[in-house]
Amino acid sequence: MIPQAMGMTVEMLEAKGPHFPNPLRKPEDLSQLKSEVDVRAELAYVFDAIRLTRRKLAGRVPLIGFVGAPWTLMSYMVEGGGSKTFMFVKTWIFKHPSTTHSLLARITDVCVEFLAHQVLAGAQMLQVFDSWAGELSPHDFRIFALPYIRRISARVPARIKELGGEPVPMTIFAKGAWYALDELCESGYQVVGLDWTHDPESAVAVANGRVTLQGNMDPNVLYGGREAITQAVERIAKGFGGGRKGWIVNLGHGITPFVNPEDLKWFFEETRRVTGASE
Amino acid sequence: MIPQAMGMTVEMLEAKGPHFPNPLRKPEDLSQLKSEVDVRAELAYVFDAIRLTRRKLAGRVPLIGFVGAPWTLMSYMVEGGGSKTFMFVKTWIFKHPSTTHSLLARITDVCVEFLAHQVLAGAQMLQVFDSWAGELSPHDFRIFALPYIRRISARVPARIKELGGEPVPMTIFAKGAWYALDELCESGYQVVGLDWTHDPESAVAVANGRVTLQGNMDPNVLYGGREAITQAVERIAKGFGGGRKGWIVNLGHGITPFVNPEDLKWFFEETRRVTGASE
Repeated sequence: MIPQAMGMTVEMLEAKGPHFPNPLRKPEDLSQLKSEVDVRAELAYVFDAIRLTRRKLAGRVPLIGFVGAPWTLMSYMVEGGGSKTFMFVKTWIFKHPSTTHSLLARITDVCVEFLAHQVLAGAQMLQVFDSWAGELSPHDFRIFALPYIRRISARVPARIKELGGEPVPMTIFAKGAWYALDELCESGYQVVGLDWTHDPESAVAVANGRVTLQGNMDPNVLYGGREAITQAVERIAKGFGGGRKGWIVNLGHGITPFVNPEDLKWFFEETRRVTGASE
Repeated sequence: MIPQAMGMTVEMLEAKGPHFPNPLRKPEDLSQLKSEVDVRAELAYVFDAIRLTRRKLAGRVPLIGFVGAPWTLMSYMVEGGGSKTFMFVKTWIFKHPSTTHSLLARITDVCVEFLAHQVLAGAQMLQVFDSWAGELSPHDFRIFALPYIRRISARVPARIKELGGEPVPMTIFAKGAWYALDELCESGYQVVGLDWTHDPESAVAVANGRVTLQGNMDPNVLYGGREAITQAVERIAKGFGGGRKGWIVNLGHGITPFVNPEDLKWFFEETRRVTGASE
């Protein structure tokens, strides 16, 4: 939605995800992008969908708004879709750091506006997904990803107030950026999402009460059937302190295809049993 | 080569890597595999190639033998090739832990034999690649990957001696298993390879002289041209103590397509300049 609002053509290909027929391959391609983006108008359909969903949910579960983080969005815009090698975007950031920063800043502006308007439309929490964070070395993450992650959390609450709304809690999920957990706990978000490569005990020790942690069962345990799911839920709940220390139960990444919905239900039921949480 | 020696059909597809037309999808498929594997006979062509290469190298550079680690080999054998979701192998390990361990043990036996014969044929160092380690949570890595990594390092030197050879240094590279660095430093290998998500300084602190570290420039920096390469080499060399503390210069993973060979050469030249290493 962000690249589309900025003027790019995006197609959703079945089983392949987003595809950009005209990716940004060199700094000159930036002329494809609009110089001014009216997020409220361009993405009106999203805000309409949020308003409708919020109404239909009728308070049964909270509605979470989200956006891709600037580094991840730039990767898609430059690669033209998912990538194995990240050749085009890595060429760009290492050869042209200055236009990288101006593109990341422009994407960030649109992200801030998009998130603020999602809250105005009814989102009760916000999550920022840096799905490709782990493609960057710690050094490059601190240059090309973290500053924009911080800028989003620094600006969104103020922008929401300016628009007449009330700020909501925000979550950062930077997949693969294990080396930055400490910095992410100081990045202005109330919740930090963890992928499944974190041992819950160690992550709790690093976070040390600064944020609520979210995660982190390997989504593929859902392929393993009831016994495997129960074992993983019990182990992970214990690691997060049995839910008593500020923990949002989640998978460590998105659910994968062909999971039996009954097994997902079992995951929820076992989580409630183990943590003593109510419906 | 290992799955082939065990009786599976393997094809190399251009730009896609290894492909197994008849993957092992369920425990019954294990009947595909030979009960006894004569590694020396089945992989004679590899040992011939090593002998020939060693002779032609004439001492100019050392010759490194290698093998995939059991977890990574099992993933290929079950998925039938590379995978995005690891659905089949994760289903297997979580549903059938007992046949998982018997398959991993059989693969390990063949790996040990293969590595020992590589040294007899002329390999002067050995590397074990657990390319898919990071797909496992720390808990599952300790169950399904680490014990077999250890078993290889525990058995290979003795097997080499039994065959009349001299043991050589061994390297373990477990991509994505950042959480296991401390354990990998105690896993019986002399060298631990690092992917580019490790900050050299932190890795040196964890290793604390127990092993020689190898790595770890993001291979995609090679797309960034001379200035980017120089900056990365200088930063990484500084992190590893300027080469004075036991460091094998390497990329943090395999080189990716379309790198200009002149840029790779520049990487070597800059490494020599910065570390003061000779040709």
